[in-house]
Amino acid sequence: MTPQRWLDRFAAALAKGDIDAASKLFEPGGLWRDLVAFTWTLKTFEGRAEVKAMLAAVLSSVKPSNFAVHGQEWFTFETAVGRGIGHLRLRDGKAWTLLTTLQELKGFEEKAGRTREWGTEHGVLPERKSWLERKVEREKALLSGEQQPFVLIVGGGQGGIGLAARLKRLNVPALVVEKNARAGDSWRKRYKSLCLHDPVWYDHMPYLPFPDHWPVFSPKDRIGDWLEMYVKVMDLDYWTSTECIKAEFIGDEWHVSLSRNNQSLVVRPKHLVLATGMSGMPSMPQLPGAESFKGTLVHSSAHPGGEGWRGKRCVVLGSNNSAHDIAADLWEHGAEEVTMVQRSPTVVVRSEMLMELAWGKLYSQQALEAGISTEIADLTLAATPFRLLPEMQKPIYEEIRKRDAELYSGLERAGFRTHFGEDGSGLHSIYLRRGAGYYIDVGASQLIIDGRIRLKHGTIDRLSENSVVFSDGKELQADLVVCATGYGSMNGWAAKLISKEVADKVGKCWGLGSDTKYDPGPWVGELRNMWKPTQQPNLWFHGGNLMQSRHYSLYLALQLKARLEGIPTPVYYLDPVHHLE
Amino acid sequence: MTPQRWLDRFAAALAKGDIDAASKLFEPGGLWRDLVAFTWTLKTFEGRAEVKAMLAAVLSSVKPSNFAVHGQEWFTFETAVGRGIGHLRLRDGKAWTLLTTLQELKGFEEKAGRTREWGTEHGVLPERKSWLERKVEREKALLSGEQQPFVLIVGGGQGGIGLAARLKRLNVPALVVEKNARAGDSWRKRYKSLCLHDPVWYDHMPYLPFPDHWPVFSPKDRIGDWLEMYVKVMDLDYWTSTECIKAEFIGDEWHVSLSRNNQSLVVRPKHLVLATGMSGMPSMPQLPGAESFKGTLVHSSAHPGGEGWRGKRCVVLGSNNSAHDIAADLWEHGAEEVTMVQRSPTVVVRSEMLMELAWGKLYSQQALEAGISTEIADLTLAATPFRLLPEMQKPIYEEIRKRDAELYSGLERAGFRTHFGEDGSGLHSIYLRRGAGYYIDVGASQLIIDGRIRLKHGTIDRLSENSVVFSDGKELQADLVVCATGYGSMNGWAAKLISKEVADKVGKCWGLGSDTKYDPGPWVGELRNMWKPTQQPNLWFHGGNLMQSRHYSLYLALQLKARLEGIPTPVYYLDPVHHLE
Repeated sequence: MTPQRWLDRFAAALAKGDIDAASKLFEPGGLWRDLVAFTWTLKTFEGRAEVKAMLAAVLSSVKPSNFAVHGQEWFTFETAVGRGIGHLRLRDGKAWTLLTTLQELKGFEEKAGRTREWGTEHGVLPERKSWLERKVEREKALLSGEQQPFVLIVGGGQGGIGLAARLKRLNVPALVVEKNARAGDSWRKRYKSLCLHDPVWYDHMPYLPFPDHWPVFSPKDRIGDWLEMYVKVMDLDYWTSTECIKAEFIGDEWHVSLSRNNQSLVVRPKHLVLATGMSGMPSMPQLPGAESFKGTLVHSSAHPGGEGWRGKRCVVLGSNNSAHDIAADLWEHGAEEVTMVQRSPTVVVRSEMLMELAWGKLYSQQALEAGISTEIADLTLAATPFRLLPEMQKPIYEEIRKRDAELYSGLERAGFRTHFGEDGSGLHSIYLRRGAGYYIDVGASQLIIDGRIRLKHGTIDRLSENSVVFSDGKELQADLVVCATGYGSMNGWAAKLISKEVADKVGKCWGLGSDTKYDPGPWVGELRNMWKPTQQPNLWFHGGNLMQSRHYSLYLALQLKARLEGIPTPVYYLDPVHHLE
Repeated sequence: MTPQRWLDRFAAALAKGDIDAASKLFEPGGLWRDLVAFTWTLKTFEGRAEVKAMLAAVLSSVKPSNFAVHGQEWFTFETAVGRGIGHLRLRDGKAWTLLTTLQELKGFEEKAGRTREWGTEHGVLPERKSWLERKVEREKALLSGEQQPFVLIVGGGQGGIGLAARLKRLNVPALVVEKNARAGDSWRKRYKSLCLHDPVWYDHMPYLPFPDHWPVFSPKDRIGDWLEMYVKVMDLDYWTSTECIKAEFIGDEWHVSLSRNNQSLVVRPKHLVLATGMSGMPSMPQLPGAESFKGTLVHSSAHPGGEGWRGKRCVVLGSNNSAHDIAADLWEHGAEEVTMVQRSPTVVVRSEMLMELAWGKLYSQQALEAGISTEIADLTLAATPFRLLPEMQKPIYEEIRKRDAELYSGLERAGFRTHFGEDGSGLHSIYLRRGAGYYIDVGASQLIIDGRIRLKHGTIDRLSENSVVFSDGKELQADLVVCATGYGSMNGWAAKLISKEVADKVGKCWGLGSDTKYDPGPWVGELRNMWKPTQQPNLWFHGGNLMQSRHYSLYLALQLKARLEGIPTPVYYLDPVHHLE
């Protein structure tokens, strides 16, 4: 069966309301991933029964139509209110996987190309306002409260910025608040050796790709600059030096207390987006004796880098990406002794391997030259339901294990424990499951193999005046202890900014319910609470790496736009809450 | 004859050194435009004799080879030191026009795509420097004089910035000095209603095109912001609040006195580029009685806009673009009386007509969708020698005259004198000939037709305390007199910054020698002194609109790069100087 024939039958069944026929076009265990187009949420339906139940509920309002094949596996379609792109994998004439995504709302298409704004109004316009005057007026009206943003985005990193750009182009009044003095500071303030661990093809912001000479791995300060200029040229409403203090949902709007340049003010948006980093708040262990420790004790997020630690003894608690970067940076700066404390095995993959074997087909110069645009790459990645991802990833990691056998045996000999996750599915899986637990190797592994970064296993029992004492009784002299101990769930931010009650109502963010360590079941099949309606009305979570922020901000922006325009957005399904954090 | 056959014959003749055969492949009056590839200058050869003379001089060193057709009229080729793109128009088997352009130097190709920088150095690098640290060090070394830029660019508008970006990507150490406090201020500081009069497709900077929602006609403040961010993300060495005071060529280098934040310092670049605006310095008429005039007398370049002139009487001297913009802006701001003083006829064309009939085929969304990239459009435009341009343009203006008959008769009735240049070849011609004399109508013409902007002909005799007195004895009360009287030739900047002697040695900049008003003969066939070697060694002029700055900065950058790398750059021809300003 050709994709066109399958789609014709599918469309015919849907048009007739024959849900049974439609579901039988799927394999019994076929998977349908919908991103907002049918369900007004992000949801994967696994098996015919789930497909049927969904269609029974939404078909009469969604009114899908105009399915048309483009190329081998891609198609376009329409719903009552929008236009979408889909992807279909057939096996023996039945759908193995189906992806449906909403791409734009009818009547509210983004202005681009031929439909872009004129910029100037030709003709005779007494008292005409310039672009700058209108911008200044908007700012004043927002500040005075005369005008309220429809959406308030807390956090002006790449996530908040990219979402704000999409909302801007959809004419959704949105305000971003960022606690730092300049956009991009959340990158600039990190340790100096920090570079993106993902290659440039993976990292573009929406609408304005990096130029073709942009380095493969962006240094943090360049990303900082890029974000700062992006805010400016995309004409975003973006307040720096503004902290969100408290938010409360009253009636149908949020009352959000802000501190802007240390002045208090309240804004009342209809929607609140937490884009405070998918990692939530820093997890700082309570170390007994911390108060008597005479050295420096700091969370990795607050560690500025290795400068100033020449000749000093440093302990890094944790063995994730940040722990490796920080340990290597300390060693490069001439620290006398750098010890990494590994508490559990780490997924280690060399950056080059990831580029070649994991991302290269979608995100690389080769892919680009083969016609795979960033948009196609994002949709291709989205077209694989999370259920199938581990099996698809395993062969990649088997190959990596072979190719980098020396690295892994070297690490083993050095006493560093690696794995590829509980099921061998590697880095992308563990990133989706727990957002941590891995190191993309850019050099630190060799330092460990060579013994330049020392290793210690186990947990810290307590700190003394000048040392770290481990539960096995061992003691390490230390001038610096960096806790690269990760971050909590994003709903920690809801607890801090709104209330514990709302945080618990919403539950844990991120993770798939894979029933692996730090990602307890049951299986939910999509990242919990991300980019979709939550149990708290009008509260949204946005975050992730640059690729996720870029791609999923589209669906979040469309959900917000529909609500602004009064387009009905019946949410088919709200995940029940199984875990509080 | 197919283009490939023609090129095969041409290549064979060149390979054999058979200059006679090569020149006979041209029509007797055929034109060959070379941009740096054969001549290390910009030069059009008209007729077989000129072609022969050039080939006789350069062939043995240029060693052209590997001519290969791409598409209908395009081809690529190599020289001893570089790679180029060419364009060929055949008529009856002979070359009517040939374009040869140098695109890159062998061994010094720009890093892009697959060859881009890695960004981070993976591995173990004690005392590793971050990108930011290296940038700060470079700045310090430049400031202390420990390091000298190879090129100093005076003027940090779109011209200087675009050239600096190209030099950066070619690894040519270049420093831009800009007198304003922020990049982009030269746009921000102009009258508030200013927008680009050219559409967005014409206006991209090199490497980093505007995103696809960027307005058709950019407001000045948005261009200002775009340039400011461009400087930052392209990682340029760019000093703001820095004025060039004096430059002297001593030995083989320039000694340039700068005032940076009011501190003096001297830099010693090998090459000096004046990118101070193709318009040179403001031409301010000496008006008798100016000292007794109690109103405001100002050049258009220093007029901030119509704000504050409500109820006032304003006179705008001149009838070019700025005069129209300023007069309309004053009227829109409620000036009691706005009078434009027209001294000579103006080429008036509605912006929409230009877009549809003049630029649309190369620079528009339609063109882009038809596969005409900005680069192809630029090269296509370059492929028409200036000699042929007027005849090609005339039909466009005949069509415009028909379509906008009402506009032109309305202006005539209002007493406003229009023409399409002495030979009817319209706006692009007059722009190349004198860089002035036109108005791209975005509304002010209707104000003139309606009598809202009043008209006065003739010249100003003198100013009294409160009025302008004309040579015909008429007197106009005036609170404001704006002299939209244009700019001098760019070599005026050489006179101001270097010496009158050097300015005279170099001679007039811009203009083709068309023997029309303000563009005296003899015919030179290229813009005088622009982007190519001048009579003053190591002094270059760069400027023009955004399209020209973008395209011709490539050839200027390649000329500078070749000199940096010690690649021989025998200049085939230096224009003699016929006019001093």
